[in-house]
Amino acid sequence: MSAPLRVTVWNEFRHERSNPKVAAIYPDGIHEALAAALRAAGHEVRTATLDEPEHGLGGDVLGASDVLLWWGHKAHAEVSDEVVQRVHARVLEGMGLIALHSAHFSKIFKRLMGTSCDLKWRVADERERLWVVAPGHPIAEGLPERIELVREEMYGEHFDIPPPEELVLVSWFQGGEVFRSGCCFRRGAGRIFYFRPGHETYPTYHEPLIQRVIQNAVRWAAPVDAAAPRRGRSDALERIG
Amino acid sequence: MSAPLRVTVWNEFRHERSNPKVAAIYPDGIHEALAAALRAAGHEVRTATLDEPEHGLGGDVLGASDVLLWWGHKAHAEVSDEVVQRVHARVLEGMGLIALHSAHFSKIFKRLMGTSCDLKWRVADERERLWVVAPGHPIAEGLPERIELVREEMYGEHFDIPPPEELVLVSWFQGGEVFRSGCCFRRGAGRIFYFRPGHETYPTYHEPLIQRVIQNAVRWAAPVDAAAPRRGRSDALERIG
Amino acid sequence: MSAPLRVTVWNEFRHERSNPKVAAIYPDGIHEALAAALRAAGHEVRTATLDEPEHGLGGDVLGASDVLLWWGHKAHAEVSDEVVQRVHARVLEGMGLIALHSAHFSKIFKRLMGTSCDLKWRVADERERLWVVAPGHPIAEGLPERIELVREEMYGEHFDIPPPEELVLVSWFQGGEVFRSGCCFRRGAGRIFYFRPGHETYPTYHEPLIQRVIQNAVRWAAPVDAAAPRRGRSDALERIG
Amino acid sequence: MSAPLRVTVWNEFRHERSNPKVAAIYPDGIHEALAAALRAAGHEVRTATLDEPEHGLGGDVLGASDVLLWWGHKAHAEVSDEVVQRVHARVLEGMGLIALHSAHFSKIFKRLMGTSCDLKWRVADERERLWVVAPGHPIAEGLPERIELVREEMYGEHFDIPPPEELVLVSWFQGGEVFRSGCCFRRGAGRIFYFRPGHETYPTYHEPLIQRVIQNAVRWAAPVDAAAPRRGRSDALERIG
Repeated sequence: MSAPLRVTVWNEFRHERSNPKVAAIYPDGIHEALAAALRAAGHEVRTATLDEPEHGLGGDVLGASDVLLWWGHKAHAEVSDEVVQRVHARVLEGMGLIALHSAHFSKIFKRLMGTSCDLKWRVADERERLWVVAPGHPIAEGLPERIELVREEMYGEHFDIPPPEELVLVSWFQGGEVFRSGCCFRRGAGRIFYFRPGHETYPTYHEPLIQRVIQNAVRWAAPVDAAAPRRGRSDALERIG
Repeated sequence: MSAPLRVTVWNEFRHERSNPKVAAIYPDGIHEALAAALRAAGHEVRTATLDEPEHGLGGDVLGASDVLLWWGHKAHAEVSDEVVQRVHARVLEGMGLIALHSAHFSKIFKRLMGTSCDLKWRVADERERLWVVAPGHPIAEGLPERIELVREEMYGEHFDIPPPEELVLVSWFQGGEVFRSGCCFRRGAGRIFYFRPGHETYPTYHEPLIQRVIQNAVRWAAPVDAAAPRRGRSDALERIG
Repeated sequence: MSAPLRVTVWNEFRHERSNPKVAAIYPDGIHEALAAALRAAGHEVRTATLDEPEHGLGGDVLGASDVLLWWGHKAHAEVSDEVVQRVHARVLEGMGLIALHSAHFSKIFKRLMGTSCDLKWRVADERERLWVVAPGHPIAEGLPERIELVREEMYGEHFDIPPPEELVLVSWFQGGEVFRSGCCFRRGAGRIFYFRPGHETYPTYHEPLIQRVIQNAVRWAAPVDAAAPRRGRSDALERIG
Repeated sequence: MSAPLRVTVWNEFRHERSNPKVAAIYPDGIHEALAAALRAAGHEVRTATLDEPEHGLGGDVLGASDVLLWWGHKAHAEVSDEVVQRVHARVLEGMGLIALHSAHFSKIFKRLMGTSCDLKWRVADERERLWVVAPGHPIAEGLPERIELVREEMYGEHFDIPPPEELVLVSWFQGGEVFRSGCCFRRGAGRIFYFRPGHETYPTYHEPLIQRVIQNAVRWAAPVDAAAPRRGRSDALERIG
């Protein structure tokens, strides 16, 4: 058993309050479903949502977070640039970031990736199979060779991200598409995992294997205890000339 | 002999007009030294500089550029966000980008990388050796196993970039540091090469082997002729349910 | 138009002589179908097959090959270790290698990969869709966003290869699997492309888009003209102590 | 504090018995110096050496090893192919492998890499600086930005390995060379770390920071608890046709 991490789950928390179908699945919000799974894994978890002051990420919340989860969808534009800047700096400093589903279009993910992060999509109650393509990866720990989701939204290629440093999961969709669904990136001292599933109208985050991937990803993305590299003007270590 | 490419060389062009030492090395500006080497390689080359209207990148200059070279140093902040946005979109569309030396801190490079792009530096007339670590790479074509520069500025690790998809050159510096000096990235349909050498007070861009790397990089970064991927809402290709 | 390359197409050439169904599709052998497509692209192409002396790879055939294509299936064990050793050395020296379909289990591919190269498979006349996941890659030049094959053999994950340096194509199969179908590797000074489609009982290599991928891959895998790196005992370049 | 791992340290153990200079540095052999550092980190450590029956790797030693360290130099050819085959299979199954210094030329490392693994070298009592180029990587945990070794053997590029999936450390040498000194690879379900320092005539493995890298690497290379992927003939999951 590894040491507990300080995890912050951020959620837009709008669909759950306006769409009864979503509220029925996530009565306390997607953030609470995610937080419960991470508390069960032994972590210290807090939540933060868009409509709180500073989106719940004020004070030293970020400084006291080892890993941040991000779920957003229809209100990306409402996230303040100042908070995005703060999250960005904290990721480069070492905080892990787990970008979930439609967070592919969040300001923070796009800023870290440097690309459009655009993709194909379709909501048609179709089957998704996530195949493990990196069986020895820590994020695949405890997984079978594939995860089946009976109904999910489709995301299809081309997904406009930088080539992932490690590709852990590839999705098959009933309607004919594939998608790189579990993607690892390093930026600065921070690690980032993009994980595809989780459309708000499906009970995806209640699935034990989906929770397992997220628990694994949090553990994988935990900061490493090391001095920040020094940069800027530097004296020579050896004699020159 | 491959087909000629449409290359645009962008230069800040300030040091050359204010510092006699730089003007002595590059009397027509760094851009003209680079352009001459690329014209010699058979390309159609134009130049653009900071103080031209729209920094010389107005109209359809970018649309008519296969590859853009970028040299900037002390006036990164003066580059307009609108032009940066236009270059960014064009790279994702397929235009190659060669970021030279202090362009590591340019707005466009930082935006494409998503990181701070910070590093160590020192101007101390010291020897640099660039070692080829990917001998079969197109950017290494025609090179010996290392390139020696008698005097250059030092850049040292940690260089805060995403892990390069391909690492072609690693520098050794006399004062004791190393640096990832030739780094390949793909973003959208575009290819990006970061190439370290080229401090304005040294005649680096007159060195034939440095010119050769840049010629190779331009060829490597040329756009691929392919349809842009379709994204957004998509119909199923197979029957669902 | 780039310079023509010297290409050797190697084929096991057993199915075509024993199975009338295969002979009907490839009357002159798979190698001749592949050779025709590469001649049409302007290359100098020769062929070599298992039952020729030294498998057709004697004398200086390899030394005079820029790129080697390899198709084998049921007789991998009959390929002599000496020839494998010769091909291996030539790839490290810079010759490109295109491993096609069941060549995933060839001695040469397994030796270059260092892994089992095992996978799932099924012959069930099912639809395959190859999606481009790297739209700016030279191997994707001229392709639409996906290639459809009405009937092919299925190959499924986990495919036990090292993580590809560049992943260009991912396949969707009607029966429910995905597969990393277009994979780039660098070994020594040589470049290797694994390309999945091509079961002998389907006319896959007559498909123009499949031919296009192979033409692109041959161009991509062409050797770079550069001095071989020196290795072994080396004198210091700088004074020590 | 994470769970202890079962670690096996393999050493050729010849230099220590024939060269008094080496014996003075490692009186109980390099393996015991490494084992002590790993026991101090809480692991269950056993050792194995070339001249034991089956090189100390008989019975279920490998099956009971989570991570294997390998140090060899002048007797690579004496390692039996059968043992190499057994280690290879076990790495693909998930066992971690830490290849130390001259193990770059060991049969097992070359087999896993698929390349010549050749490099430049020089024994000249020169200074080495290992710079961290991936500050957020678990293998860099607790390290300063560089490690200094006052005297070591030089290894120089080009190092003929596949491009590392993750590059953690790059060495600077006083005599003018650079080297990729800390390299991560995944093969099958196993993880491999190549770590450069450790020439037998220098007390390198007594250095606390070098021990720290090895402790970190062992932790990083630990197997992931997951079902082995099924391969071979597979039934369809969805209806075809």
